[in-house]
Amino acid sequence: MGDSCYIHPKAINDSKDIGIGTRVWAFSHIMEGAIIGKNCNIGEQCYVEGGAKIGHGVTVKNGVAIWQGVAIEDYCFIGPYVVFTNDRLPRSPRSPFVQKRYEQQDWLMPTLIKTGAAIGANATMLCGIIIGEHALIGAGSVVRGDVLPFALMVGNPARQIGWACACGERLPREHEPKCKSCGRVYAIENGKMIPRWE
Amino acid sequence: MGDSCYIHPKAINDSKDIGIGTRVWAFSHIMEGAIIGKNCNIGEQCYVEGGAKIGHGVTVKNGVAIWQGVAIEDYCFIGPYVVFTNDRLPRSPRSPFVQKRYEQQDWLMPTLIKTGAAIGANATMLCGIIIGEHALIGAGSVVRGDVLPFALMVGNPARQIGWACACGERLPREHEPKCKSCGRVYAIENGKMIPRWE
Amino acid sequence: MGDSCYIHPKAINDSKDIGIGTRVWAFSHIMEGAIIGKNCNIGEQCYVEGGAKIGHGVTVKNGVAIWQGVAIEDYCFIGPYVVFTNDRLPRSPRSPFVQKRYEQQDWLMPTLIKTGAAIGANATMLCGIIIGEHALIGAGSVVRGDVLPFALMVGNPARQIGWACACGERLPREHEPKCKSCGRVYAIENGKMIPRWE
Repeated sequence: MGDSCYIHPKAINDSKDIGIGTRVWAFSHIMEGAIIGKNCNIGEQCYVEGGAKIGHGVTVKNGVAIWQGVAIEDYCFIGPYVVFTNDRLPRSPRSPFVQKRYEQQDWLMPTLIKTGAAIGANATMLCGIIIGEHALIGAGSVVRGDVLPFALMVGNPARQIGWACACGERLPREHEPKCKSCGRVYAIENGKMIPRWE
Repeated sequence: MGDSCYIHPKAINDSKDIGIGTRVWAFSHIMEGAIIGKNCNIGEQCYVEGGAKIGHGVTVKNGVAIWQGVAIEDYCFIGPYVVFTNDRLPRSPRSPFVQKRYEQQDWLMPTLIKTGAAIGANATMLCGIIIGEHALIGAGSVVRGDVLPFALMVGNPARQIGWACACGERLPREHEPKCKSCGRVYAIENGKMIPRWE
Repeated sequence: MGDSCYIHPKAINDSKDIGIGTRVWAFSHIMEGAIIGKNCNIGEQCYVEGGAKIGHGVTVKNGVAIWQGVAIEDYCFIGPYVVFTNDRLPRSPRSPFVQKRYEQQDWLMPTLIKTGAAIGANATMLCGIIIGEHALIGAGSVVRGDVLPFALMVGNPARQIGWACACGERLPREHEPKCKSCGRVYAIENGKMIPRWE
């Protein structure tokens, strides 16, 4: 690719802010004002709206719509058909019952996915929430609130069932766990998983 | 748009029944025999099958397939990647095990989404059900049965956790609640939320 | 169609292994190395990756991505927006935190959907699992483990709530049930449903 990004001929790109080495695959649409960093992979059937921000080295699998208000930091994994939101109490803006609500933008609630987090396939992400660094959301989960760094979450609503290493491996249930896959060490302090390898 | 609808050049439209002011976005496909009213917004990656009916002022976000048998009344909101169905016990019609089942259409079960209802992102809608006026289905819910007007539903299976105003705001837990956002008043009678503003 | 398959002009096909009578609809993409049998129907917005295998007479509804590692036997039904996976602990392969994990393919876990099984709309399928013959997965389920032949599953996580006949009908709760729709007979032995009609 040299010094540019790759846009599949069946994709549509209206953004001027896509980083070097990023690839966008068929039937995806990047809107004007969308910001995507370097070396990302945006799968097929995706949609990135103006105002959405994606960092470097992010993997977005097929069928993901990333709306205005959603920010995804470096090295995150967004699984296939993960669904984001940006309105907690949606109604059709065309409805006379809604009156003036959609004339301003205070209906819009942000979502922040922090560095290295992974969102499993078909998970549903409510808005107004922060997913901590390297958290791992299980496939099919419905996430309604903030998630701690390194937390492993599953279910509807999603609940924490353990901890995940930055490499993806599940951490042993110990106060100072060591990852059996990559050897990274951690310590639990005040209910949070603190990396000892940074 | 003047007196017609707008079809994105990367969408496919085979219907002659799309109302004035309605917009259909990229990679969506409206089939012959699909009926869509005025001033709707049909997002990207959508599919509206022949026999599906959509009223006026409806918002359909990205990635929604609306099948034969599904009817959506005026001013509804259909969130991104909401999934409808029209067969309670599906099998491949190509299967020799299924025999004559798919030769007739009695396998087809309807779904009705009544005026002003909102279906949250990635919700799954079983068929043979009616969603009442202005009901609000939370993101990621799996709805297996009828839903009362103004009911707020969440979970898998979806259960009622409260009531929503026609404007979208959650109603206070009172016998005669008043919406703190728009001021509409209601009364609960025989377990149902009755609007006092019509 | 005569002796060939049909590819919609808005679909992309890079495979040489699609059987006679199979149809692939708009905005779908069949990759090089994907294998699809005869008389299948692949809906719109689908994606079949190299290394994925689909048998004969399979129905795949809209919005389904079938990854490397997923095998679907004859006469299965894959509902709309069913989501498959092939990595239990996903991270972005572009992440420096993941190191060498994605250089080899031992992260890839297979999924096998056996003859005649039906996966309901928007179900999420974890990987490393086998879905038994003629099993029926309810819409919106999250399937985390193996499923018995003829089992009827619902929920997140999916749990067995009964049994389904090969024809799709729910079987009565008896030790030797007879399908009220097609008349097929079965017997439960050691907790498994054994067909007496083969």
